[in-house]
Amino acid sequence: MIKREGTVDYALEKSVYVEMRISRLKEKMSANGIDAVIIRKPETAFYFSNFNPVLNSHPAFVVVTLDAEPCLLVHSIRCAHAKEEGALKRVELYGKWGANVPLAGKAADAIRLLVGKEKLCLGMELDDISMDFYQEIQEVLHPDKIVSVSGLVNMMKIIKDEYEISCIRKSARLVDRGVETAIHALERGCSEAEAATEGQYAMRKLWHEKFPDMEVCGFGTSEGGMIDSLHVWCLSNGHIAYGCDCPKHYHPQNGDLTLPMAWAKTGGYHAENERTIIIGELDSYKRRAYDGMLRARESIFNILRPGTAFEDLYRAAAQVYTDYGFGDILPGRVGHGIGCSAHEFPSLAMGNKIALKPGMVITVEPGLMDKGWGGVRHSDTVLITEEGYESLTKYNMGEISIQIRG
Amino acid sequence: MIKREGTVDYALEKSVYVEMRISRLKEKMSANGIDAVIIRKPETAFYFSNFNPVLNSHPAFVVVTLDAEPCLLVHSIRCAHAKEEGALKRVELYGKWGANVPLAGKAADAIRLLVGKEKLCLGMELDDISMDFYQEIQEVLHPDKIVSVSGLVNMMKIIKDEYEISCIRKSARLVDRGVETAIHALERGCSEAEAATEGQYAMRKLWHEKFPDMEVCGFGTSEGGMIDSLHVWCLSNGHIAYGCDCPKHYHPQNGDLTLPMAWAKTGGYHAENERTIIIGELDSYKRRAYDGMLRARESIFNILRPGTAFEDLYRAAAQVYTDYGFGDILPGRVGHGIGCSAHEFPSLAMGNKIALKPGMVITVEPGLMDKGWGGVRHSDTVLITEEGYESLTKYNMGEISIQIRG
Repeated sequence: MIKREGTVDYALEKSVYVEMRISRLKEKMSANGIDAVIIRKPETAFYFSNFNPVLNSHPAFVVVTLDAEPCLLVHSIRCAHAKEEGALKRVELYGKWGANVPLAGKAADAIRLLVGKEKLCLGMELDDISMDFYQEIQEVLHPDKIVSVSGLVNMMKIIKDEYEISCIRKSARLVDRGVETAIHALERGCSEAEAATEGQYAMRKLWHEKFPDMEVCGFGTSEGGMIDSLHVWCLSNGHIAYGCDCPKHYHPQNGDLTLPMAWAKTGGYHAENERTIIIGELDSYKRRAYDGMLRARESIFNILRPGTAFEDLYRAAAQVYTDYGFGDILPGRVGHGIGCSAHEFPSLAMGNKIALKPGMVITVEPGLMDKGWGGVRHSDTVLITEEGYESLTKYNMGEISIQIRG
Repeated sequence: MIKREGTVDYALEKSVYVEMRISRLKEKMSANGIDAVIIRKPETAFYFSNFNPVLNSHPAFVVVTLDAEPCLLVHSIRCAHAKEEGALKRVELYGKWGANVPLAGKAADAIRLLVGKEKLCLGMELDDISMDFYQEIQEVLHPDKIVSVSGLVNMMKIIKDEYEISCIRKSARLVDRGVETAIHALERGCSEAEAATEGQYAMRKLWHEKFPDMEVCGFGTSEGGMIDSLHVWCLSNGHIAYGCDCPKHYHPQNGDLTLPMAWAKTGGYHAENERTIIIGELDSYKRRAYDGMLRARESIFNILRPGTAFEDLYRAAAQVYTDYGFGDILPGRVGHGIGCSAHEFPSLAMGNKIALKPGMVITVEPGLMDKGWGGVRHSDTVLITEEGYESLTKYNMGEISIQIRG
């Protein structure tokens, strides 16, 4: 039913899928002897509640025990937001703001009241939970044992459900528009930064037009928030070797490699489209790198289906790059999971023996980066299907050359 | 010298100020018997290195010891970026990417090589360092003691230097433009979301025109990044009670309160301008709240000078709101520090007895929020001076009423 766009009650869908995720978490808790799980990482709290506070200065928690109703615990300042937009029936508060009545002043004390008994086996994402909060929980709850649930949660999130895929499809449409617009702006003689501005503006216009009911917010650090999650940026030549950076007010010229990138997060779910553009004519070295990149992608797409191991995708691309003479500057990975996060578990890298399964969403982006001459990378957001794969981003997957008309 | 805009060598300035910050950190380390400090929080690592990796999937660290050269430790994927744009002379690497040669595969092992001896007293920001990383550091370094330097770092960052203030001034100009543009768009009949889009577009245009050499990037969570830090958003009526959220495709109407907000981060430093707009005519209840808000702000500005305690600012505003009949929905704070972060230490709240000093930059935003009728809040970004204060945001600080012409 999720596929009939425009007819779906998203609020209802969200609740149904969140309920399924909580049920699966509880199964895993039972199987691992875990009595209660406390989630604080914004991306994971969103996964189990569909609540994004946008700002994380006052973090939101999801508290799941084996028997009680799962609870979204937020600071009082987030009360109305959590009650109206979160997908969990039970919302409790900590801290003081306005007329709201919190369970306790501090989150840890509220959690003690929610979890109830002491002497339990507690699960938290220990790659996320700060040392200060860990100690607070220890002092307040005296658990028998604290175990990390990071791996367990990562393995749950690796397969996307229909709701998640429907969001990623929307993000994919937006990033296609963003990159296409940026490329046209570059053709007109815009700087990197100006092209990014035009691409972002076009993405926001498409959001207004096609997906007005979807949020385009991201997650913040502990001291900030990401209120807009539709981004276009662009790097050229040696700057590509930075991997990620603010676009500059540089006007690409003949012989350059320029890399416009669009990232979008719609309804909490990311997609990305990144394209390396040839400006005019490349020298033979860059030309070889570009051709190698297209072949490396082909080698991944050729084996992109259920059953293939993640590291096989890396190996295939690395072999092509080595054959093309770039064996000394191989990337650390050639793609990654994508979903609630821009960069999600797992990596398309050596040592990752997990096999692809239908419902996984990953980026395919075997790239080269070198300060001396620049770099090459196309990135697509791809869904693994029963039969093989479907690229959710669709804008021009091959060679892209432009002439600057400015 | 920092004030002669256009003539300043910012790269040089950055290094000078970073050096001064490191010196002050070392003094505090000596005074507290701390042998080495490891910083990982993106905002603080930036403060001590002027390096923003934008993405934090592979975090950057600043490692400071009493005797050795301070070191920026980054993943190999960030090598070129850190060496060219970071302000620390020494850059070391962990992890494998391309042809770069790292100190070690894991950050903790690289830190052991940097810090050298065991049995030391180690400082980290324990409200940020994850439990997993804490344990890794313990296992690899066997420190005698680990202490939190969060408080010490917060107290250093509370006073801004000239370079920081010059960046915040630029951000303030941008947010003034963003809010003004959004208000004009609302007047033309735009939705909240459309007004935000136009405001953001105008901010980016002004960035191109006035500050092309400044980065407009933010900091990401452990799974993402903020590639664009010029944001405009807008909430109306009951939605204001969310505090922060994605704008909706709602067209404000007569009798509404609408709150366009602009946040900008230029060269790593934030400013914000938030304005509550009266659409047409308010009912008497909202009118009273609006008047109370203006008076509450006045009561803060009246005592905004060196020597006043932060809690006195809260107390002044709370008294006004109580006099206006809103004593039951008082906010938790009426402003906060701002700088590398949107929300920085400290809060303008009860219990904060720190006295204002010249060089502090804070937001002044005593607000009311209530799901029933909405909320009121203007926010300005304000520098404390020797004489009193200077509001860095300047666009229309009083009552703002518009008629929708759409």
